[in-house]
Amino acid sequence: MTLPGRVSITEVGPRDGLQNEDTLFALGRKVEFVDRLSSTGLRRIEAASFVSPKAIPQMRDAGELMRGLRRASGVTYVALVPNERGATDAIAAGADEIATVVSASETHNQRNINRSVAQSLDAIAGVAQLAAGARLPWTGYISTAFGCPYEGAVDPARVLEIAERLVALGAGGIALGDTIGAAEPRQAGALVGALRARLAGVPLRLHFHDTRGTALANVLAALQAGADEFDASVGGLGGCPYAPGAAGNVATEDLVYMLHRMGIETGVDLAALIEVARWIEGVVGRALPGRVKGAGDGALQAAG
Amino acid sequence: MTLPGRVSITEVGPRDGLQNEDTLFALGRKVEFVDRLSSTGLRRIEAASFVSPKAIPQMRDAGELMRGLRRASGVTYVALVPNERGATDAIAAGADEIATVVSASETHNQRNINRSVAQSLDAIAGVAQLAAGARLPWTGYISTAFGCPYEGAVDPARVLEIAERLVALGAGGIALGDTIGAAEPRQAGALVGALRARLAGVPLRLHFHDTRGTALANVLAALQAGADEFDASVGGLGGCPYAPGAAGNVATEDLVYMLHRMGIETGVDLAALIEVARWIEGVVGRALPGRVKGAGDGALQAAG
Repeated sequence: MTLPGRVSITEVGPRDGLQNEDTLFALGRKVEFVDRLSSTGLRRIEAASFVSPKAIPQMRDAGELMRGLRRASGVTYVALVPNERGATDAIAAGADEIATVVSASETHNQRNINRSVAQSLDAIAGVAQLAAGARLPWTGYISTAFGCPYEGAVDPARVLEIAERLVALGAGGIALGDTIGAAEPRQAGALVGALRARLAGVPLRLHFHDTRGTALANVLAALQAGADEFDASVGGLGGCPYAPGAAGNVATEDLVYMLHRMGIETGVDLAALIEVARWIEGVVGRALPGRVKGAGDGALQAAG
Repeated sequence: MTLPGRVSITEVGPRDGLQNEDTLFALGRKVEFVDRLSSTGLRRIEAASFVSPKAIPQMRDAGELMRGLRRASGVTYVALVPNERGATDAIAAGADEIATVVSASETHNQRNINRSVAQSLDAIAGVAQLAAGARLPWTGYISTAFGCPYEGAVDPARVLEIAERLVALGAGGIALGDTIGAAEPRQAGALVGALRARLAGVPLRLHFHDTRGTALANVLAALQAGADEFDASVGGLGGCPYAPGAAGNVATEDLVYMLHRMGIETGVDLAALIEVARWIEGVVGRALPGRVKGAGDGALQAAG
């Protein structure tokens, strides 16, 4: 089994996780969350989304959050932006990096952000110019890359085409989102392989939701196909707390645990990360799906 | 990715799952559980353990259970036995197949069943004779094959040695148990590969507990190494309900979902199996860890 020796993890709990919580958390609590995460050895944190506060009230104070963080040395703070206005705000607030999103399926893009894919790509072109002007790198997320809740199967050729468009617009990396947790390992490995072949040298990140428990198997298949960058959400925070089964990203501590057990470095202090997972579980006040925070990393010491 | 086209699943919920529930269920309820499972297309069900009722009160009526089942055509009903007395009772009750257990680690065997590994192998030799006399096949489980809660790492050479001993005693198959959910994919693939090389032609089954969320990733690695038989527990039933993190086997419906999505046949009706998972969740009265029973198999239809 040929696998990378080191994996880069982007923590998305403060953005993709929190934005699905109905309870609005105070700014200080959100700042504390990001600061706790940056103390665990995580080097990349998606801290906030610069969207309309009407669309996502949880992100209403994204600028203050970004300005209020204790900026840990060596940590990249990423801001998700839907448009030029968001990019302008994120840059002004001091984001280190920008993330943009477009869906691989027309219907999902339309229903999710009320635009066609072509319109989204136009907006991303504008964001790209702003990022370039500020000398900030940006990543292009392609959501529903492994399946769409409205259209079903998504043609890999369409994902590759959008990825090429994003790279042509200046994306420094591509992230494939399994938005609804529909990916299976064979598909995950194949799409990673196809993308790496088509866009050699372009950093590729995988964003697997764990809706049906297959996220770590998808991670394994992606690793085998050469991927070495993954998104994860501490505790498995995310999804809709009131929609049974709607789940967040793979839990960061579960991902780190598996990688470490496989002899793959992440730079993350697993024990410290588990503490953050338990803390945020207390903050949101419901059981989060991550497993290692309950089981502990005992097997790592005992059987490692 | 070279994978088998079909996988055989052994449902262990009625035994490995229920034996960890403190609430003692009525005989009729347990019979109903097995009968519901045999209606889903599952072809192998570990129905009970023929142990001392003092050791495991939940299994106190194993014989009546085995006699009370609606014996579905084509379904193999397996009985776990710790010794000759259990084997005699299981055979008398009409079990189709026997399962024996010995740990790969001396300390776990001693603490779990108060015997040395050598003593367990002697007892298994006695069970083997009884099984042969009744013309029943038997499988030799090797628990803690991927790690021991007392000794930590387990030497794969020791696992291979015990497997060879079991085959020499007449085992028709070997099952490797990840009793504490310590396995990681690289290790899982390597051990499967080593065992298949050493014991070519001997059926090999994998029994992964999902304590740390890695079970499906371990399944994937085992599949890639040529395994095509797995244990699973509907709903993820198992583990100790009062020990946070102690978890059951991988949820049968999650395993079936992933395999079907990968194009691997199991013969199981996933929708029917999800219904059983939801039913047993109601019976035990607590949330079980399986994911697909909440999320549904929608992605299968939508994106399959």
